[in-house]
Amino acid sequence: MAKKELHIISTGQQPIKEFVSTIASIHDYVDYIHIREKTKTAKEIFDTVMYLTENKIPLSKIIINDRVDVAAVTRVAGVQLGYSSLDVESVKSRFPELKIGCSIHSKEEAIAAEKNGANFCLFGHIYSTKSKPGIAPRGITGLTEVVSTTNLPVIAIGGIQPQSTLDVIEAGAAGIAVLSGVLLASNPLGAVKEYAYKLGREGVHNEARKL
Amino acid sequence: MAKKELHIISTGQQPIKEFVSTIASIHDYVDYIHIREKTKTAKEIFDTVMYLTENKIPLSKIIINDRVDVAAVTRVAGVQLGYSSLDVESVKSRFPELKIGCSIHSKEEAIAAEKNGANFCLFGHIYSTKSKPGIAPRGITGLTEVVSTTNLPVIAIGGIQPQSTLDVIEAGAAGIAVLSGVLLASNPLGAVKEYAYKLGREGVHNEARKL
Repeated sequence: MAKKELHIISTGQQPIKEFVSTIASIHDYVDYIHIREKTKTAKEIFDTVMYLTENKIPLSKIIINDRVDVAAVTRVAGVQLGYSSLDVESVKSRFPELKIGCSIHSKEEAIAAEKNGANFCLFGHIYSTKSKPGIAPRGITGLTEVVSTTNLPVIAIGGIQPQSTLDVIEAGAAGIAVLSGVLLASNPLGAVKEYAYKLGREGVHNEARKL
Repeated sequence: MAKKELHIISTGQQPIKEFVSTIASIHDYVDYIHIREKTKTAKEIFDTVMYLTENKIPLSKIIINDRVDVAAVTRVAGVQLGYSSLDVESVKSRFPELKIGCSIHSKEEAIAAEKNGANFCLFGHIYSTKSKPGIAPRGITGLTEVVSTTNLPVIAIGGIQPQSTLDVIEAGAAGIAVLSGVLLASNPLGAVKEYAYKLGREGVHNEARKL
């Protein structure tokens, strides 16, 4: 199996120090860390990036949600754009150095994201999740449809547990994104190793077996 | 008297269409229009800029509060940075094409803004204003102190009425910034002409005399 990506997304619920401390302990098993803190100011997000780098998290692993300006000045890997963000095309044109993730919820949005120059898309939610109450999950069927529609890597998000990770990957996802499943787990390192093992990452096989 | 600047700052209270419609009717008398809409998303601020340009407001007159990314992709004149924004130095370094205004409240902050590369500072509030209840105004004394401390143009803000405009200018301000005094006036065009007249703008003398 080709290497599949593991993205960890901040919950918006943790104090910065707690978030950074957890990330520092797990980032060896993670490809990208998304700072998605919708109520934080530009300065607070900037400070979070500084604090991550002080804790040896490489900029090349950091993606910032919505605040393209903070991403540009801190020189992190990229940005994640949603409905209320600047459009992919404008960001791609002005900030060609940034990797652009686009949040999508349908085949049509996947097609648009690819056409506009996104580098990957985040599709969900796949399974029921407390963070999306009352909205029907897209399921594996929805994921399969989107994967067959676009050439972009599709990162699946929403209620994915270690035991459902393989189903998601077999449906064609290029990786998964997890929030509370790791960051709010009683044992974040144990949790991230479980996901990493399911994603076929080398070196965690024996460790995860022991969990 | 050298030409003094008139900045109009959005109130955060008006629907976009109403704001743009008013700006379209007054912008001939205005040097800079600040989009300061702290609860609006990046997309909404982007759309506001597009709507202003559709209504013939030149990009060279538009300044965006806090969202440097929206300023960069829309290519407006500049940004206004406050306490919760990215710092002046980072923005100056990454976006040298943007004119940078820095919101300050003391001599020390004026010195820092100048050292860090700001192009002007916004100092206030000068007079009591409903938008800053319970905080003592800096007054003409505070303004005079700041002006004597920095080489930056100081734009005065906060409760400035047409009848107090000359006092502010005589204290050394390079201009004034007004929000509700124009945008929420019963007659915005009449109000802006009053300010423009007090600021010594050519061509409004006779018009304002008739008010």
